[in-house]
Amino acid sequence: MKDDYLFKQVYDYVLNRIQRNEWKEQDKLPSIRQLAAEMNVHRLTVLKAYQLLKQHDKVYSKDKSGYYVQSNMTKSLEYPDNPIVSAYVQKNHLSEIHQAPVTYHFSQALLDPNLLPNHYFSDYVKKVFDLYPKVLATYSTVQGDLELRERLTQYFINHYKTHLSANDLLITSGSQQAIHLISQAFIKPRDTVLFERPSYSAAIDIFRAQGAHIVTVDIHPYGYDLEQVEHYMKQYKPRLFYLNPTFHNPTGYTVPIKQRKQLVELAEQNRCLLIEDDAYHDIYFDQDPPPPIYTYDSAGSVIYIRSFSKYISPGLRIATVICQSSLMNSLITVKSLTDNGSPLLNQKIFLHYFSSLRLQQHLEKLRIALEIRKEIMEDELAVTDWKWTSPKGGLNLWVQLPEKISTELLLTKSIEQSISFVPGQVCDPLKQRSSWIRLSYSYANEKQLSVGLKRFIDVAHSLY
Amino acid sequence: MKDDYLFKQVYDYVLNRIQRNEWKEQDKLPSIRQLAAEMNVHRLTVLKAYQLLKQHDKVYSKDKSGYYVQSNMTKSLEYPDNPIVSAYVQKNHLSEIHQAPVTYHFSQALLDPNLLPNHYFSDYVKKVFDLYPKVLATYSTVQGDLELRERLTQYFINHYKTHLSANDLLITSGSQQAIHLISQAFIKPRDTVLFERPSYSAAIDIFRAQGAHIVTVDIHPYGYDLEQVEHYMKQYKPRLFYLNPTFHNPTGYTVPIKQRKQLVELAEQNRCLLIEDDAYHDIYFDQDPPPPIYTYDSAGSVIYIRSFSKYISPGLRIATVICQSSLMNSLITVKSLTDNGSPLLNQKIFLHYFSSLRLQQHLEKLRIALEIRKEIMEDELAVTDWKWTSPKGGLNLWVQLPEKISTELLLTKSIEQSISFVPGQVCDPLKQRSSWIRLSYSYANEKQLSVGLKRFIDVAHSLY
Repeated sequence: MKDDYLFKQVYDYVLNRIQRNEWKEQDKLPSIRQLAAEMNVHRLTVLKAYQLLKQHDKVYSKDKSGYYVQSNMTKSLEYPDNPIVSAYVQKNHLSEIHQAPVTYHFSQALLDPNLLPNHYFSDYVKKVFDLYPKVLATYSTVQGDLELRERLTQYFINHYKTHLSANDLLITSGSQQAIHLISQAFIKPRDTVLFERPSYSAAIDIFRAQGAHIVTVDIHPYGYDLEQVEHYMKQYKPRLFYLNPTFHNPTGYTVPIKQRKQLVELAEQNRCLLIEDDAYHDIYFDQDPPPPIYTYDSAGSVIYIRSFSKYISPGLRIATVICQSSLMNSLITVKSLTDNGSPLLNQKIFLHYFSSLRLQQHLEKLRIALEIRKEIMEDELAVTDWKWTSPKGGLNLWVQLPEKISTELLLTKSIEQSISFVPGQVCDPLKQRSSWIRLSYSYANEKQLSVGLKRFIDVAHSLY
Repeated sequence: MKDDYLFKQVYDYVLNRIQRNEWKEQDKLPSIRQLAAEMNVHRLTVLKAYQLLKQHDKVYSKDKSGYYVQSNMTKSLEYPDNPIVSAYVQKNHLSEIHQAPVTYHFSQALLDPNLLPNHYFSDYVKKVFDLYPKVLATYSTVQGDLELRERLTQYFINHYKTHLSANDLLITSGSQQAIHLISQAFIKPRDTVLFERPSYSAAIDIFRAQGAHIVTVDIHPYGYDLEQVEHYMKQYKPRLFYLNPTFHNPTGYTVPIKQRKQLVELAEQNRCLLIEDDAYHDIYFDQDPPPPIYTYDSAGSVIYIRSFSKYISPGLRIATVICQSSLMNSLITVKSLTDNGSPLLNQKIFLHYFSSLRLQQHLEKLRIALEIRKEIMEDELAVTDWKWTSPKGGLNLWVQLPEKISTELLLTKSIEQSISFVPGQVCDPLKQRSSWIRLSYSYANEKQLSVGLKRFIDVAHSLY
């Protein structure tokens, strides 16, 4: 997907370096392997760029020894129609799919705005202005509003009986920013990172953009193969393992308690940080999920990211990170460089809504509404021979289609019919072809789910 | 300042790599020069860390050939009291100074919250909830709310008669995030970046954290030595020049129109991006400053960062970036990875306040209030033999003390007396000793300015 775009970026990048005389005439270009690693692209993409540069007489090749800058190049004063400075390649695959304007949104793992308690929010905003009349004139501390951190600390202590102080918490603008801060503080190019397969697409893109080398372990309905996890920790010495063990995105699987305890031990023994992304914790249909992995950690092996904003108030963009103090100090510094602290207004509004009784009532209603939507989706899909494991929480169904369907082609055809979904390939850290897709039941309403899925099944059936 | 902290981080980093067996027994450590470059620290800092590692028997040295990992090390199962994964060194010097709890804040280039129209803000918030009842349930697009971008586009067209569309604008969470996004999109380790000397401390730290090699040109009351700028562009091929040409931070100097035009030509000829940070544009005392450099650009050589939030509503964290489309596409992708878009609520509140008549009235009052504070500061300093150029706008006085005063010692003594300021060294991209300091007159009120400065002058005089 979008290979042309990547290839063009590599082409521009090389041409730009040559034109800026950073790579001089007769200089040897980096090897294909080397540039592919540096730019985080496939070697064939670099090869394609080099071949076209050769065709355009910008570089030449010598037998098998590589590619070299042409002599006439750096004297040229003429610049093609490319930007003054080329950007380093970065991608956000999911964001590209979401840009498609469709009626039936099954790609968005977001809540339908109608499911949120919109008419109450303005009460809390009013309360915030009464309590803190200068809230818009004031910066938050970088670590986040103390009152909010204290309230959240109390919440975690009440729920999990852990030892915790407000100093162990950092407030971020959504969980995505938390993942980004962690990648900035702890990862440099060529560091190894362990990922679940499949995984959260934006997290994959963030660590890739930071230059990480990604190794994967499969996630199953019962969790991981822990022997494989241990083997990979010993063999590849990953600096961290990014995981989403509770109503996992995209599969909906939940890692059982026993494995949670073992993971903490493995992480401690092998000096591998666990990044526990817990974005769907409160969206369960039957019973509370197991406690977070971080509650079993006594050695500082876990950085815990808890997002509430998805199902409480997406527009506020509030998440929190919990970790031990030396890791926290690094994250605070990166946060200070990144945006110098999240806006205070948003933190205060969130605080007062979070502390209210209404929130509990909202969550109870929300769980029921989402379970109904999930059931509608499953009922519609029951006419097919597609396979999935019914999730006990979260916002997505992870569905296996017949092998013969191309999910890329299906996406193209679906968007023509005003339907979006996420092809499994986008959730695969290794970006391989796949017959899996992610269908989210959280954004479309009941009617749209029913109509849109019938239409989607028709599109799919027309392809086999 | 904080050298111990840096040295400890290098020590931990090396030990961590050894203990994780990434550097194996008998392996040669990276050379001091190499590790210093990778971690962005001084070579002496690396040397100190290596020497202590040797003393602790973790590494050994061979004649002049370097340092090697001890044999017994990797067999050790015992870990010292350090984090499970060491962070990469990042610093934010200014943020550290601001953490000192003092009464007389001359280090904060922020507005006194009492100067902001706090009692009006809640009206706009109410209006926003009436107009967009689901604002808290909705994500902004990554590029920023279209209505806000259109309003700002109109503002720029009216003021500068430039060609511009809403697609050329990106909304960020403050100008600091804009600088950070740019560094992520366009800079990799060892790329050269041109900086003014002195410059904005957070920008220096951001580009350093990204691994940039920094080259500086002095800024004077009349602007730059453009021959030097040209020479450096040709010699070092910087990818970009970060500059703050209007009521420059920290000096208050403004680059004249003639140089603005020449800079655009130099940038285009030498394929060097200009990053124009315009945070103080509306804070002038006498007359409007010259138009931004970007208004003279027709070749896409400028990325313009305009921050309003400092003097309109700091708590909202809103800034905008203007640039040509291919650069914009890269910035949008990085923004999508960083936080997936700034909160919509904040953008809508800003939009309605920005569009109001009250804003103009607020700005007129604000300019007068700040000019008075500046004059109080200058009156107090008149008893000294210190030197400064009276600024025509902005929030800071850039003051030269007698050479014999150590500004580090002065800072320590001042904080004991509950006074803060910024030593010039923090604003120096080269981090050299300096007899300059930055005094901000925007945060302390008139009384605090008068009392605090008298006390500050006493502290300084006690040192010579």
